[in-house]
Amino acid sequence: MAPDAVPACPLPLADSPHVLLAHGGGGSLMHQLLERLFVPAFRNPLLETRHDGAVIEYAGLRLAFTTDAYVVQPLFFPGGDIGTLAINGTVNDLAMCGARPVHLSAAFILEEGLPMDTLWRVVQSMRQAAEVVGVQLVTGDTKVVERGKGDGLFITTTGLGVIEHRLVIAPARVQPGDAVLLSGDIGRHGMAIMAVREGLAFESTIESDCAAVSPLVLALLNAGIEIHCLRDLTRGGLASALVEIATVARVHITTDANAIPVCEEVRGACELLGLEPLYVANEGRFVSFVPATEVERALAILRAHPLGIDACHIGSVVALQDGHLPSGLVTMRSPIGVSRVVDMLSGEQLPRIC
Amino acid sequence: MAPDAVPACPLPLADSPHVLLAHGGGGSLMHQLLERLFVPAFRNPLLETRHDGAVIEYAGLRLAFTTDAYVVQPLFFPGGDIGTLAINGTVNDLAMCGARPVHLSAAFILEEGLPMDTLWRVVQSMRQAAEVVGVQLVTGDTKVVERGKGDGLFITTTGLGVIEHRLVIAPARVQPGDAVLLSGDIGRHGMAIMAVREGLAFESTIESDCAAVSPLVLALLNAGIEIHCLRDLTRGGLASALVEIATVARVHITTDANAIPVCEEVRGACELLGLEPLYVANEGRFVSFVPATEVERALAILRAHPLGIDACHIGSVVALQDGHLPSGLVTMRSPIGVSRVVDMLSGEQLPRIC
Repeated sequence: MAPDAVPACPLPLADSPHVLLAHGGGGSLMHQLLERLFVPAFRNPLLETRHDGAVIEYAGLRLAFTTDAYVVQPLFFPGGDIGTLAINGTVNDLAMCGARPVHLSAAFILEEGLPMDTLWRVVQSMRQAAEVVGVQLVTGDTKVVERGKGDGLFITTTGLGVIEHRLVIAPARVQPGDAVLLSGDIGRHGMAIMAVREGLAFESTIESDCAAVSPLVLALLNAGIEIHCLRDLTRGGLASALVEIATVARVHITTDANAIPVCEEVRGACELLGLEPLYVANEGRFVSFVPATEVERALAILRAHPLGIDACHIGSVVALQDGHLPSGLVTMRSPIGVSRVVDMLSGEQLPRIC
Repeated sequence: MAPDAVPACPLPLADSPHVLLAHGGGGSLMHQLLERLFVPAFRNPLLETRHDGAVIEYAGLRLAFTTDAYVVQPLFFPGGDIGTLAINGTVNDLAMCGARPVHLSAAFILEEGLPMDTLWRVVQSMRQAAEVVGVQLVTGDTKVVERGKGDGLFITTTGLGVIEHRLVIAPARVQPGDAVLLSGDIGRHGMAIMAVREGLAFESTIESDCAAVSPLVLALLNAGIEIHCLRDLTRGGLASALVEIATVARVHITTDANAIPVCEEVRGACELLGLEPLYVANEGRFVSFVPATEVERALAILRAHPLGIDACHIGSVVALQDGHLPSGLVTMRSPIGVSRVVDMLSGEQLPRIC
């Protein structure tokens, strides 16, 4: 096929002729960059599912394929490091496609002067995290950039997983009547990073929730739970995930703030820093959308696993009412019983959280 | 599986407690980093094939899986840019596994302040390069790092391709009696980049050879040529590729300098900068190892394609003689008839060439 002419640049995006930190923040500016720049360029049905990965088919075999660049700072934090994150984050994106993670690739961008021992420790963390979940790292690449042209270490991992069921798990499958289940308390990863960065001391250290959640997802699938959608709560947190799904599915998601677990340390740190736990990144938490009739069975399965003991039912999907914007709606009932609209994160909250 | 204890760091590698630019240069230090740090950590049979990608099997289906980080500077150069490179480089790694490239992912690490128009142009180049070769970019990620913590734009692409034949194409398959075919003249990509960086002016601009060579490989395969090994000549150039293959296959590769095409401009630029074309990176050239009986047929097929019109027979594989190191040998007959040993690139020749 001959390449066609380059269309004129429709930018500046959001009145900015330059890339801003918020373009990587998981909120509305990132969403805009994706919608106006990347999706139009590479337009194809897979990219348009707005999923955590692509589901591709080869000769009747369904595979999930997903990639993430990891640029977290600091490289080491309570509960993990950039290596555990690079394995678990990509494994989780495969899990969100309903796939069993099998193979990974890793590409390293090293800054000249990085201590070899740092690289060694990160690689050992990757090895351990891969062993825990049973995935193999089978190919990779290493590049080195001059001092001052990188930031120690960036890792991009790409994952391949096998889909061994017949469900279609995607935002567009969410429908009125679905229940929203949350796998555990929120905000730990983001606040663990921020506590280190800001030098905050609490009575007890906040540990990142960084973990591979694929065992929970596979347990739900193996039990035959009819999952409609899965989403891990990374950049932009729970709020952004729900808004994105409501928008794609054109539904109204109602949630109850009382039902959403946030531990005391995270709540305290958020108050201190003026952050809202709903928007804070997690690396071992996800929501599942299942038919309301499956709630009890699904919760029992999630709670049977150490990573899901605090799993809970946080909301429901209803049809959009006349007069609402056609693009989806998320509302939350506050502890004092008032319902408010939940927006996508706008601007930059926590840069380089993953 | 429970993670086992972290073994002690066997470093410093090559007497350096820190990462050096040469660790990414495609030569012996990069090789050492791979052999001593990455391969031991992730030890598995696929990683140990020392191939451009991994060949994985799912339910009898053979797929090639490969990843590369692109950090080239400058972002735009005669004959291409980081976007064309990110598509063609990964497509070529799939081709070197004997696969038909099908799907790609792309992860972007943007530096705050990058002009949106730069990103736009790069993305359009990626779109065009993907269209030319018929691959689909189906999933991606974007991260932004603070000003001064990156260098404009890094891209990691990961590719998936389907293997539609029964050959095993790998360095270990190279054997005495094989012929070494080169697909075209060498050194263009590296010298195009260096000419821009060093501000060199020649009578005519050196253009990078950056291109997807998968059509040539698929033409050889479709004609039933029994390919033993394929290798594209990126970092470290032709010399490093041959040394690496000779080492894995434990053979002696004899080559003839007279047979290796280098254009006048590249030869001149190399002399000016004190570089050896054999070690200069290419992004659209590869060697194929085929049985000697297939040479004429294979050359005719390569030369029938615009990217292979200068294809030539540059050498042969013979058994290692007693007394040679057991780890492989490459020799080259010079224009005046003297045979010399060709070594792997040591140290850093051209940083950030891809």
